[in-house]
Amino acid sequence: MTMAYDGHLFHGFQMQPNQRTVQGTVEQALIKMTKGKRVIVEGSGRTDSGVHAIGQVIHFDYPGNQIPANKMILALNSMMPMDIIFNDCEIVNEDFHARYSIKGKWYRYRVSLDHFVNPFKRFYTGHYPYPIDIQKMQEAAKDLLGTHDFTSFAASGGQIINKVRTMYYVNVEKDEKENEIVFDFICSGFLYNMVRILVATLLEIGNGKRPVNDFPRIIKAKDRQEVRETAQASGLYLYHVFYDELPKKYRQDLE
Amino acid sequence: MTMAYDGHLFHGFQMQPNQRTVQGTVEQALIKMTKGKRVIVEGSGRTDSGVHAIGQVIHFDYPGNQIPANKMILALNSMMPMDIIFNDCEIVNEDFHARYSIKGKWYRYRVSLDHFVNPFKRFYTGHYPYPIDIQKMQEAAKDLLGTHDFTSFAASGGQIINKVRTMYYVNVEKDEKENEIVFDFICSGFLYNMVRILVATLLEIGNGKRPVNDFPRIIKAKDRQEVRETAQASGLYLYHVFYDELPKKYRQDLE
Repeated sequence: MTMAYDGHLFHGFQMQPNQRTVQGTVEQALIKMTKGKRVIVEGSGRTDSGVHAIGQVIHFDYPGNQIPANKMILALNSMMPMDIIFNDCEIVNEDFHARYSIKGKWYRYRVSLDHFVNPFKRFYTGHYPYPIDIQKMQEAAKDLLGTHDFTSFAASGGQIINKVRTMYYVNVEKDEKENEIVFDFICSGFLYNMVRILVATLLEIGNGKRPVNDFPRIIKAKDRQEVRETAQASGLYLYHVFYDELPKKYRQDLE
Repeated sequence: MTMAYDGHLFHGFQMQPNQRTVQGTVEQALIKMTKGKRVIVEGSGRTDSGVHAIGQVIHFDYPGNQIPANKMILALNSMMPMDIIFNDCEIVNEDFHARYSIKGKWYRYRVSLDHFVNPFKRFYTGHYPYPIDIQKMQEAAKDLLGTHDFTSFAASGGQIINKVRTMYYVNVEKDEKENEIVFDFICSGFLYNMVRILVATLLEIGNGKRPVNDFPRIIKAKDRQEVRETAQASGLYLYHVFYDELPKKYRQDLE
């Protein structure tokens, strides 16, 4: 199932005791539908507290009688709070797994350039009211494409040992109407806080605090101490999950 | 001063005991600045619980030493919660009054046409997931222009006796990117719930529940019973307040 959620009132995706989480909320609804059976919800990955999703994907094994896909959407939406919505449902083979079957993930990050924090954007964007050169960020972003060890961009705390990932696509663009910068990243997989650390580094480059060609050096260092900043959770959106080979237009690494 | 606020966590503009209100929040900050003197904040008008503002205007008489306009913005913003922002400040003559000096007010209403309620829009739009003909609404809206007794579009509870107002400008437009309809109304003044009742009526016309030429009949009836629906507060924005004569482009009533 594909779902969107406004993350600002959730303690992230993953279930935790006594916290309002996305996984917990969906599992509660499924328990009601199955009259008491626990149905384990597997997500394409966790999102942190305050992080949003436009296209999060989950899977679960629904016990008992099969429910048609469109009925499942209606049934779950009728039990969801207003900050979660299911937009799509597909009945899949046994070998599909929301996390292990991934071919790529797309995260978007929005940064407001307004002088003051816009009240309507406080939960939905990061905020950077400083001078910024978008061309410098666009130039620097090219160095992220391809296969690299992204250790320098992973927050400590993750249990993953292999930190080699392939960055397929990076786009940095001004949304003039909203006075925002929109960052898009499509990668084979993301490490803990990786997008937020990448965005913080790009903003430092755009602001002139780092040279435009700093990424190759940071990547080579394999040291989180090289990058101390992490952009706010509020600007981050899990935008799309790919389970098929990526369309060519998103394979900038092959260009 | 000109301010924006996200209304979804306020019990409206007007101060009320034991409720979080916009006026109350600003007056609390002013009490701190004046070390205990109450400064009465006058708004261009009240907004209801859940209603937003992009360009609300307030005035107050600041006691003691005059503070430069740009310093006043910074001082108040530093004490505001994240859902209020002051964008402009102007030192005015004694005869200026945020409410009585008004030449016109501009309200905007946003309606999402998404099938399900989008989690990111639940506090910021109305919702109308039914078939809608925008041309019909555009056609009907023309009948609102000019000077009319708007009694049929005023919720009971207001203390105003004279319900004659001049509608200067009405625009109904599709925002394709957002899948929303955006309604704009500029009027000499608005009665209680007037925009929300007008929008509900326009949606009924767009949906074919009412004839396109129903407004002249409803206006003539001077009876609130003619219109029973009121659109949700969440879609409504006080967009701008005019204190000078309206620019010609907003005087559709003279065309």
